[in-house]
Amino acid sequence: MAKTAITPTRADDYPEWYQQVIKAADLAEVSPVRGCMVIKPWGWSIWENMQRVLDGMFKATGHENAYFPLFIPLSFLQKEADHVEGFAKECAVVTHHRLKPGADGKLQPDPAAQLDEPLIVRPTSETIIGAMYAKWVESYRDLPILINQWANVVRWELRTRLFLRTAEFLWQEGHTAHATAEEAREETMKMLGVYADFAQDFMAMPVIKGEKTAGERFPGAVDTYSIEAMMQDRKALQAGTSHFLGQNFAKAQEIKFADKDGQQQYAWTTSWGVSTRLVGALLMTHSDDDGLVLPPRLAPKHIVLLPIYRNDEEKSQVIPYVDSLKKELEAQDYVDGKVRVMVDDRDIRGGEKNWYHIKRGVPLRAEIGPKDIAKNAVFLARRDSGEKKGVDRTELVSSIGQRLKEIQDGLFTKALKLREDNTRTIDKLGDFLAWFTPQSEDKPEIHGGFANCHFTEGPEVDELLKKHKVTIRCIPLDQPAEMGTCIFTGKPSARRAVFGKAY
Amino acid sequence: MAKTAITPTRADDYPEWYQQVIKAADLAEVSPVRGCMVIKPWGWSIWENMQRVLDGMFKATGHENAYFPLFIPLSFLQKEADHVEGFAKECAVVTHHRLKPGADGKLQPDPAAQLDEPLIVRPTSETIIGAMYAKWVESYRDLPILINQWANVVRWELRTRLFLRTAEFLWQEGHTAHATAEEAREETMKMLGVYADFAQDFMAMPVIKGEKTAGERFPGAVDTYSIEAMMQDRKALQAGTSHFLGQNFAKAQEIKFADKDGQQQYAWTTSWGVSTRLVGALLMTHSDDDGLVLPPRLAPKHIVLLPIYRNDEEKSQVIPYVDSLKKELEAQDYVDGKVRVMVDDRDIRGGEKNWYHIKRGVPLRAEIGPKDIAKNAVFLARRDSGEKKGVDRTELVSSIGQRLKEIQDGLFTKALKLREDNTRTIDKLGDFLAWFTPQSEDKPEIHGGFANCHFTEGPEVDELLKKHKVTIRCIPLDQPAEMGTCIFTGKPSARRAVFGKAY
Repeated sequence: MAKTAITPTRADDYPEWYQQVIKAADLAEVSPVRGCMVIKPWGWSIWENMQRVLDGMFKATGHENAYFPLFIPLSFLQKEADHVEGFAKECAVVTHHRLKPGADGKLQPDPAAQLDEPLIVRPTSETIIGAMYAKWVESYRDLPILINQWANVVRWELRTRLFLRTAEFLWQEGHTAHATAEEAREETMKMLGVYADFAQDFMAMPVIKGEKTAGERFPGAVDTYSIEAMMQDRKALQAGTSHFLGQNFAKAQEIKFADKDGQQQYAWTTSWGVSTRLVGALLMTHSDDDGLVLPPRLAPKHIVLLPIYRNDEEKSQVIPYVDSLKKELEAQDYVDGKVRVMVDDRDIRGGEKNWYHIKRGVPLRAEIGPKDIAKNAVFLARRDSGEKKGVDRTELVSSIGQRLKEIQDGLFTKALKLREDNTRTIDKLGDFLAWFTPQSEDKPEIHGGFANCHFTEGPEVDELLKKHKVTIRCIPLDQPAEMGTCIFTGKPSARRAVFGKAY
Repeated sequence: MAKTAITPTRADDYPEWYQQVIKAADLAEVSPVRGCMVIKPWGWSIWENMQRVLDGMFKATGHENAYFPLFIPLSFLQKEADHVEGFAKECAVVTHHRLKPGADGKLQPDPAAQLDEPLIVRPTSETIIGAMYAKWVESYRDLPILINQWANVVRWELRTRLFLRTAEFLWQEGHTAHATAEEAREETMKMLGVYADFAQDFMAMPVIKGEKTAGERFPGAVDTYSIEAMMQDRKALQAGTSHFLGQNFAKAQEIKFADKDGQQQYAWTTSWGVSTRLVGALLMTHSDDDGLVLPPRLAPKHIVLLPIYRNDEEKSQVIPYVDSLKKELEAQDYVDGKVRVMVDDRDIRGGEKNWYHIKRGVPLRAEIGPKDIAKNAVFLARRDSGEKKGVDRTELVSSIGQRLKEIQDGLFTKALKLREDNTRTIDKLGDFLAWFTPQSEDKPEIHGGFANCHFTEGPEVDELLKKHKVTIRCIPLDQPAEMGTCIFTGKPSARRAVFGKAY
């Protein structure tokens, strides 16, 4: 068996492989604070790239950024009944604003500094942002409000997993208010589209756009839409959501406006978000048994140059060559910017250095020693395919954009093929259950994949799905009109849903 | 008296003028959450520009970004005695992780979900970051660690003021660890220099770099340095701090490393930060009685184009002209990017529209109507000087960078003159007291300005200063060697300090 940089492999133990890739690529770490993670520089720079791209997409669709308080007074959260029900069980509650020494001399919350009203660390900001919108909106001329916030949020989680599920996470939350339901619905779908474009064009991660069923809606929403992706263990990951909130929050928060006829109306609102979870999704979509694989469009560095020399004389030849190559490569355009180049001239063994960058997922590595220089060439390795070959320097510079495009496209194609190979259209309950039966007892996670089935919503279906740990991921927006029969109840069905085991 | 857009004027009531400029420029608002502010899109985009520039400066000096937990366990805060003493009296304490209905049916913190150890919402992150560094550092080869974090922090404040003093604020905090004291001291001074360069070159705000006296040090620091600026009411504002922490935090957090000889040593650490307070500083440095004045390097938009037409026929002529001018201007380089242009084609009166942009501080406004187009010109107004004149279109495009530079430089020169005009070298206590006596009873804020005086540290000096509400801002780094006599005690003194009333 070939030796791999990551132990265990995906096939051996997928969940543990995930943790080990994070460790090997130095992306993040568990912190001493329960449920909270530390995002390390390499992981953070991926998130920074995601932020930069998404921020540009939000601005291009007419949104502005703003910032709202970290704390939400308890009474605000309570204004929307479903909403508070959804978040009350997992929130961080601030009750005091001062510490003082207790009888034992140790610091404790000062009883004299108890807050009149507890503050909740925001799990999401509909209620506090809605309270501001209520102040800002008077007339239809004040609408729409199209605002996004980049922020940290807290949802108390007991079973956490780096990036995928943590008590504190970072995200963006868009909150918009509109004069009509149509406009708000249009916004909801537009931002779902932005998320899908981002996932596919930048993360190289194919996604299914669809509507959530009632049981999976955001607490307080009228409709929730999501993008769903298949990870390499064939489980589904919800990668972004966009909610049409109707007038629920507008009524709870009194967001009212005078329409053109001077009549008072409630506004129609939306919200939409993606989070640092996307870093986990990116990892699980492309990485392999040697560590992280990064799509070039989000890679902090596109190529690492590795100078090779045995003595000072060689060094004095190699280093200037590498520096000038770096400058030349950095002058090349790549998508919305320039090629991102790093030089690794650390004094460690060449093998160790190569593996360091393999594990961190840098798309291209170029070794450059005196022999390469003599031929005016570099020894180029691709992270995605493992291909290694000598490449003429001039050709490397002129074709780097094209090479990165090939890698980006190849990763998408491979991920799409995985999903297609592991998706079935299923019309019989027996087939459905077989599809979701684990392939072996010691690997309960590995099962068929996605199933497209006719269905109806209802408690009996929910119960059966729960028993088999299968979930309805979404009702895809793009599907042929086709009447069918619910595979669970035999009732008539007008639409199929995507079913899968889920993160 | 000339009518001003802001009431009251600076001369009439400076503190209230400050609030009214924030309101008129739509920068921020008080939120319903005690002490927390809402930063609105225009205010946020100024902060975004500050972040972008500073982030580039940090990266250019070798720092990487990362992210650490929002919460700090109480026991961590307690590890450094001075540190916890400094923050225990003003912190948000999380004590529960769930809400449940009480006897009255209303939600309350669930007694069954009380945390074993309270969590403090970070007031600053030395302790939690130090705990991670202790895990990351084993040998001298792991040093230095040069990390920055962009984050929100909370310090419970009772008397708050938008941007200047709020319970929650946004900032960056750099945290570095080094093998030697010399390196850590060098880092401390380097980042103080970065802050000074940013303040002067981008904010157009002259600052004095200096060392803080013992009483003004960051809790737990060996030495604290700051940059200090004079606002238009002649009060001082501390705009950024850089701390040499010695081995205090390394000892508290056990950040140890094996040196080249294999001996265990404690690391030497630093921390440094600037916050959203800088937006308040920017406002108070340049704004006037008509509202915000923005230095071009941080202005979200450099120029607003105001199309003028009376009917559809004129509109069909003016709009394409304005659009093409926008494209041409946007293609012009300005410092680290391009010229930022907006078109305001809202259907509101021209006067109202002009005042809107005056109050928001856009550096240049260009009105463009059929008559201007006939002359291939625009009617250009400068926000800083109020100057208005017709300018040839070609000249506008070719000289926009130069015009913006003039504005940027002019704002700095003006601010520097204000400081110089209101700074005295004072060698007698009587003169000192007269300098800090309010100029009239109804305006207790308006006094002389800054004073450079010989001094010694001690309780008697502290008491006298406190009585007169004067503070030692810093001991300037750049000052001539000159022995003198402390004006308070008559003792010999080797250095002067800057004294001022402070925000």
